[in-house]
Amino acid sequence: MYKNKKSSKLKIIPLGGLEEIGMNITAFEYEDSIVVVDCGLSFPDDDMLGIDLVIPDVTYLVNNAEKVKAFVITHGHEDHIGALPYVLRQINVPVYSTRLTNGIIEHKLEEHDLLHDVERHVVSFGDTVTLGHFKVEFIKTNHSIVDAAALAIYTPVGTVVHTGDFKVDYTPVYGDAIDLQRFAEIGHSGVLALMCDSTNAERKGFTQSEKTVGKSLDAMFADHVNTRIIIATFASNVDRVQQIIDSAYKYGRKVVVEGRSMVNIIDTAQQLGCISIPENTLIPIDNIKDYPEEKTVIITTGSQGESMAALSRMASGNHKKVSIGSGDTVIFSSNPIPGNEKAVTKVINELLAKGAEVIFQDAHVSGHACQEEIKLIYTLVRPKYAIPVHGEYKHLKAQARLASELGIADENIFLLTSGSILELDAESAKVNGKVQTGDVLVDGLGVGDVGNVVLRDRQMLSNNGIMIAVFAMDGAGQLVSGPEIITRGFIYVRESDALMNEMTELAYETVNDLVTLGITDWSKIKSKVKQALGEYVWNKTNRKPVILPVILEV
Amino acid sequence: MYKNKKSSKLKIIPLGGLEEIGMNITAFEYEDSIVVVDCGLSFPDDDMLGIDLVIPDVTYLVNNAEKVKAFVITHGHEDHIGALPYVLRQINVPVYSTRLTNGIIEHKLEEHDLLHDVERHVVSFGDTVTLGHFKVEFIKTNHSIVDAAALAIYTPVGTVVHTGDFKVDYTPVYGDAIDLQRFAEIGHSGVLALMCDSTNAERKGFTQSEKTVGKSLDAMFADHVNTRIIIATFASNVDRVQQIIDSAYKYGRKVVVEGRSMVNIIDTAQQLGCISIPENTLIPIDNIKDYPEEKTVIITTGSQGESMAALSRMASGNHKKVSIGSGDTVIFSSNPIPGNEKAVTKVINELLAKGAEVIFQDAHVSGHACQEEIKLIYTLVRPKYAIPVHGEYKHLKAQARLASELGIADENIFLLTSGSILELDAESAKVNGKVQTGDVLVDGLGVGDVGNVVLRDRQMLSNNGIMIAVFAMDGAGQLVSGPEIITRGFIYVRESDALMNEMTELAYETVNDLVTLGITDWSKIKSKVKQALGEYVWNKTNRKPVILPVILEV
Repeated sequence: MYKNKKSSKLKIIPLGGLEEIGMNITAFEYEDSIVVVDCGLSFPDDDMLGIDLVIPDVTYLVNNAEKVKAFVITHGHEDHIGALPYVLRQINVPVYSTRLTNGIIEHKLEEHDLLHDVERHVVSFGDTVTLGHFKVEFIKTNHSIVDAAALAIYTPVGTVVHTGDFKVDYTPVYGDAIDLQRFAEIGHSGVLALMCDSTNAERKGFTQSEKTVGKSLDAMFADHVNTRIIIATFASNVDRVQQIIDSAYKYGRKVVVEGRSMVNIIDTAQQLGCISIPENTLIPIDNIKDYPEEKTVIITTGSQGESMAALSRMASGNHKKVSIGSGDTVIFSSNPIPGNEKAVTKVINELLAKGAEVIFQDAHVSGHACQEEIKLIYTLVRPKYAIPVHGEYKHLKAQARLASELGIADENIFLLTSGSILELDAESAKVNGKVQTGDVLVDGLGVGDVGNVVLRDRQMLSNNGIMIAVFAMDGAGQLVSGPEIITRGFIYVRESDALMNEMTELAYETVNDLVTLGITDWSKIKSKVKQALGEYVWNKTNRKPVILPVILEV
Repeated sequence: MYKNKKSSKLKIIPLGGLEEIGMNITAFEYEDSIVVVDCGLSFPDDDMLGIDLVIPDVTYLVNNAEKVKAFVITHGHEDHIGALPYVLRQINVPVYSTRLTNGIIEHKLEEHDLLHDVERHVVSFGDTVTLGHFKVEFIKTNHSIVDAAALAIYTPVGTVVHTGDFKVDYTPVYGDAIDLQRFAEIGHSGVLALMCDSTNAERKGFTQSEKTVGKSLDAMFADHVNTRIIIATFASNVDRVQQIIDSAYKYGRKVVVEGRSMVNIIDTAQQLGCISIPENTLIPIDNIKDYPEEKTVIITTGSQGESMAALSRMASGNHKKVSIGSGDTVIFSSNPIPGNEKAVTKVINELLAKGAEVIFQDAHVSGHACQEEIKLIYTLVRPKYAIPVHGEYKHLKAQARLASELGIADENIFLLTSGSILELDAESAKVNGKVQTGDVLVDGLGVGDVGNVVLRDRQMLSNNGIMIAVFAMDGAGQLVSGPEIITRGFIYVRESDALMNEMTELAYETVNDLVTLGITDWSKIKSKVKQALGEYVWNKTNRKPVILPVILEV
């Protein structure tokens, strides 16, 4: 579309989201213009103890702030928008997105008291926005959230197509099918690079239409006319909620929506007209007791076994307004996300033990393209370069294999890592250098103040607890009080008198020996006490608590 | 087989293993006789921080020690034998098991320096041992470990059949197929109760024969004649190792066995003749460099992504003798056990990123019976009562559904929980009472000394670390030194000077105010300091570290 008249190159720099699930954010840079696609968060790994969420390190954007024109957002999932409130505080530029995506972003900005400080633009499918050297067109796709977009990014060296997260749904619940014609037209004009969703690249075939879930739900409603029905699904899957409501209406049931995030998104979707709820169908949870159980449906969060979500509280008997019994059918309209299997199973076991029937099959379809859909997009777009995105290494690799089978030369397929700078022009592409990237940990109000040192301490504390040896010394270097030994998370002290006494004695003797030798160097004394206690504890218990000697000067 | 001439009842008391995976142990009691089937451990849940393993609370056995005649063991997996060294220290009775099971138990006892203190008996299939009022017959079955047995437990009130873990393999790799004829004979004589493995009760159809894995492996060897092959599997699956060695031999490759547990079990299996290794096939790992890569196979532990296992160390580049590259094909001859999915995926991603090809499909079959096999056993045994065992609640429930379909009256199907006492005689069965059961946590050398208090402390420490406020007071109640604030796992102190100073100041003022008011009650002072610091920290950071005020008297 554009001819490359200059020697400048396009730089594509993923600042997150590669070799991991979540935290999608990619910078596109050409001369004095940078456009950033998505700004997601990820959830902490098991070893990130106490961390609430993880956002990308955007030092590169901050250092190039004058170039950054905008964030363009593909859709409203947390792994694509969740870091916006944090990142916009560091670099405040306009945000472009489609209607529901913008609605969800606005809700998030409001929670962070940022709504009036951020410029937002709602874009319609087919619209193109000009951002410095770039033009960005929003293309209709299908996904497990309404209003998902792919992007055609027109640059001076050629066009890059970024699919966002997508599937091909010929019979979507709300709105149109993915705009395959537009993909074809853009492909026909010539595409430099395709950045395509890899999540399901290991799976053969086609992902089923969202509508198939509606049919399954109808069948389940028909099979369970004598019980209350509780359905857990993802809060953001508005189409799923629509279909549950449709089934409920068809079978004459009232619907309760339970779980804060679910209520929020349905409110937003209703305001924007993305969901249509028949009158008198939705009722407040407090009114559910006014209807026979078999005339009600509860749509709830907690399909991933999240311990604080509504369904988990129902399952464990800790929900204030819903108690589970043999008159309940619970449907998981979801699959466990990898890592959540055990938590989900725990909830299922608890529900079964309370007498509920539990259905966890056939009530869900994926929102991501399988192999045949990925091949379709490649074949329509016919890119010169393939850059698989959105996935762990094995997913990227699986898409690379598909691209290769489709005839893309292996040297034109790039498996990037976060921070890599891919430089392209019409003739060539290569990885050239790296920018700073990484995980910024959010813990409570703190952003980035918990790093590896703190995490390592938490890890050690979690394994074997802590032992503190406190004593007081005077200016002459004489021991005047203590040592006193205090532990937390190490051993049950009330049943370990002997051990505690021996350790106190040992600490005392260690300090006393050093004092007698005239040693007054506190760091030396602390280090000897730590060593003596550490060896003793290891021999007695095979444990390694954190040992912390503290000296007070009096 | 026996007539119930007295009014005594048989008690079946699961001391673990129900509503959970692992820790299988069940007591059978009749008058003055108790026989215990299996004595397994389980691995700690995610919230059991720092715990190495979990063993059952056997207080009930200890309190009835004079009755306990023996442990009879079905097979050599950790969830059936792993607690023996701990439990035998509390109640030392003879252990009965088949040959390989006994070999593995002996190895374990030796490690715990118990070999000479425990009476062991090797039982052949078809043998019956008399233990007080009980006679116990060992019946050949198939499972993912050689020499697995089902048990027919003949009691004065009738016969109980316990399948152990089993599958029906008509073409096993080593030894005979499951002795279905014997199940039929015993069934024909009349069976009071069947206790059947539920692990795969949710799965339709038949579990494939172990031999099918051999065929898949052969095909993979044929497909990869130009690379080294690394195969990860369960250490205890001797038949699997046999088939890998057979394929290796067929394709002219040398075999290295890597990973301590793998080496141990293969040694034991070789000594007992349960595995046959062609001469000059096995080589030490140090000699592998003397052969071309494509003429070698490494069989290794780590198929579950265990971070310290050999395969994980290879994948992360931390193995001293094996480095992974594009000349490697890595085969996972295993499925991830629920909960290990993320760890396995991490290893796969690392291997792929190092250039290896990774195969994680079609190289494994389960060791547990699916629905058709379970139905077969019920139909041969025709029990009056069904007691599904070995599984979480959802698995037990799935088997209960099968039993019901097979015509067992619903009131004759018992979903027991650990500790329940099921009382049976020829005419009736009911749950009557409960005995003490529970998790005993093993942490290093400590058995049971870490309980809920310590775990809760570790949980809190792991979330937000600890803050210690130390100060010294004299006999008159005057503050003579400190407060000094020390933290671990809370915040990176070097970058938090201001916060640390403010907290020190706050602690000082809090103590000083109380001292000025003449308050000398240390617990009151500590509690005020804790409260003041807690509120301050929460407002500043939204975190809740453990806060520990310490007063030294000087």
